[in-house]
Amino acid sequence: MPEALQADTPAGGADPAAGFGRLAVLGVGLIGGSVAAAAREAGCVSVITGYAPGDDAREALALGLIDRVADSPAQAVVDADLVVLAAPIGAQPALFAAIAPHLPPGALLTDCASTKLSTTEAAREALGAAFARYVPAHPIAGSERHGPQAARAGLFRNAVAIVCPQPENPPEVVDSIRRFWAALGARVSALDPARHDRIFAEVSHWPHALVFALCGAIARGDFAADALRMAGGGLRDTTRIGASSPQLWADILLDNREPVLACAAAFESELAAVLAALRAGDRETLAERFALASDWRARLVQP
Amino acid sequence: MPEALQADTPAGGADPAAGFGRLAVLGVGLIGGSVAAAAREAGCVSVITGYAPGDDAREALALGLIDRVADSPAQAVVDADLVVLAAPIGAQPALFAAIAPHLPPGALLTDCASTKLSTTEAAREALGAAFARYVPAHPIAGSERHGPQAARAGLFRNAVAIVCPQPENPPEVVDSIRRFWAALGARVSALDPARHDRIFAEVSHWPHALVFALCGAIARGDFAADALRMAGGGLRDTTRIGASSPQLWADILLDNREPVLACAAAFESELAAVLAALRAGDRETLAERFALASDWRARLVQP
Repeated sequence: MPEALQADTPAGGADPAAGFGRLAVLGVGLIGGSVAAAAREAGCVSVITGYAPGDDAREALALGLIDRVADSPAQAVVDADLVVLAAPIGAQPALFAAIAPHLPPGALLTDCASTKLSTTEAAREALGAAFARYVPAHPIAGSERHGPQAARAGLFRNAVAIVCPQPENPPEVVDSIRRFWAALGARVSALDPARHDRIFAEVSHWPHALVFALCGAIARGDFAADALRMAGGGLRDTTRIGASSPQLWADILLDNREPVLACAAAFESELAAVLAALRAGDRETLAERFALASDWRARLVQP
Repeated sequence: MPEALQADTPAGGADPAAGFGRLAVLGVGLIGGSVAAAAREAGCVSVITGYAPGDDAREALALGLIDRVADSPAQAVVDADLVVLAAPIGAQPALFAAIAPHLPPGALLTDCASTKLSTTEAAREALGAAFARYVPAHPIAGSERHGPQAARAGLFRNAVAIVCPQPENPPEVVDSIRRFWAALGARVSALDPARHDRIFAEVSHWPHALVFALCGAIARGDFAADALRMAGGGLRDTTRIGASSPQLWADILLDNREPVLACAAAFESELAAVLAALRAGDRETLAERFALASDWRARLVQP
């Protein structure tokens, strides 16, 4: 593992006695609800306040994920020691702007958004001096399910959490945010936002676009109903992420458009070669290309 | 479920006392080995003879999957009551030709190949009068693993097994082969070979080509190593079938070329619309197309 990607904050490494104090979670669906549940299970926070538009916060309260429901982002953060943004990507700029005037002087911030360049820039614009206490993050965990009902304390266990330390961050702030994600069970690695966005276009964003297109073509085709009856475990696994939220993924893909389009172009070139070999009956080329793919996939083992 | 697809032979419905006698399995890798293991567990066969080129048959014997190793396909079938072909698709025509002169007069035959038109035609050419006792089949079960070590008695439990009865098959022959697959735990449905091949291009063959191309593009790209470290459960599930055998899948795709190319064309049209919307920043179109895909996928539940 290259230096930059080493998980130099081991999972579970936080000292609960040190603690992160009062936690505010903005957005308490699958991700935010799981942050709350995991922080409580780790014993590393005291009171947990949640804010979310709609019914999510009340549901999260009823499920015991959070202790208090805030009526606004400002109210959620006003006495917070640590603020975790876990809202859909399009909602984050407005959240940063809403909380900026109300953050206590020492409050630390982190987030969970799937893209890091735009989120970091939005925070830099909105937060002013408080930007120095914000460490952008992306826990690599999720599910095709959503909402507080899908939240669970173990979501981040053994998952990778990327942090993107900024030049403005004092080392002790970076260290605290690393320890927080480690306390939730994640293996913490650092990346700069642009490199993060390119890597995650490849491993997550583009595959979502691809699988949506695969499912969309089947759904529009002559065998949409037969496919539901006849699919084996292969298609079920291949298309699992195709059940993800259409709105959320439209936003992520638009946010990370250029890297995703670069992945699409590389894929289209590979697919064109495969289809040309198939049309030509060129078994050797097909088998060679599939072997390269299969060898790579065989190295993608469970963490 | 339309009439034609009803599982009218319930799983586990065979009467072990009726039995299928001596079983010959040609090809004892993942599929053939699992047929042997499942038939033994069901108690519906007596002696199990296996044939395979290479070391698979001796390994299957050592693993207790089969009772006898045959040195040739002819020797394997010479005293068989039921013959199950479970060889790679390209090997089946030669196997039919090799066993045809040696089949006992009453022996029944079935197979496991992933395409049914070409296999059925090869059998019709090679088997002569014995073709009437062959019911083409395709159990929808498998794994990215292969070889006798991967075989397991439960592989077909609750899986769909497609049978493709032929005009030459007497009803009692079709009934016996249906009961055999049901005895292994499968839910048996009937389809004609051409329709089978079109449906399985959509639900299995084309998705394999797509996933091989996705993995191939990642493997050739700048982030091949990062992707191995950073991938979450989504990419692992999406690409699982990409670890499948390159040779086996080159053969399946070539065998079922036209239906697969039709699926590829439908996919390319859907993908082009998605990428155009992404380039144009057209969130509404993206979300609409993803919603159609997601709604379809949400209906693809566990059997």
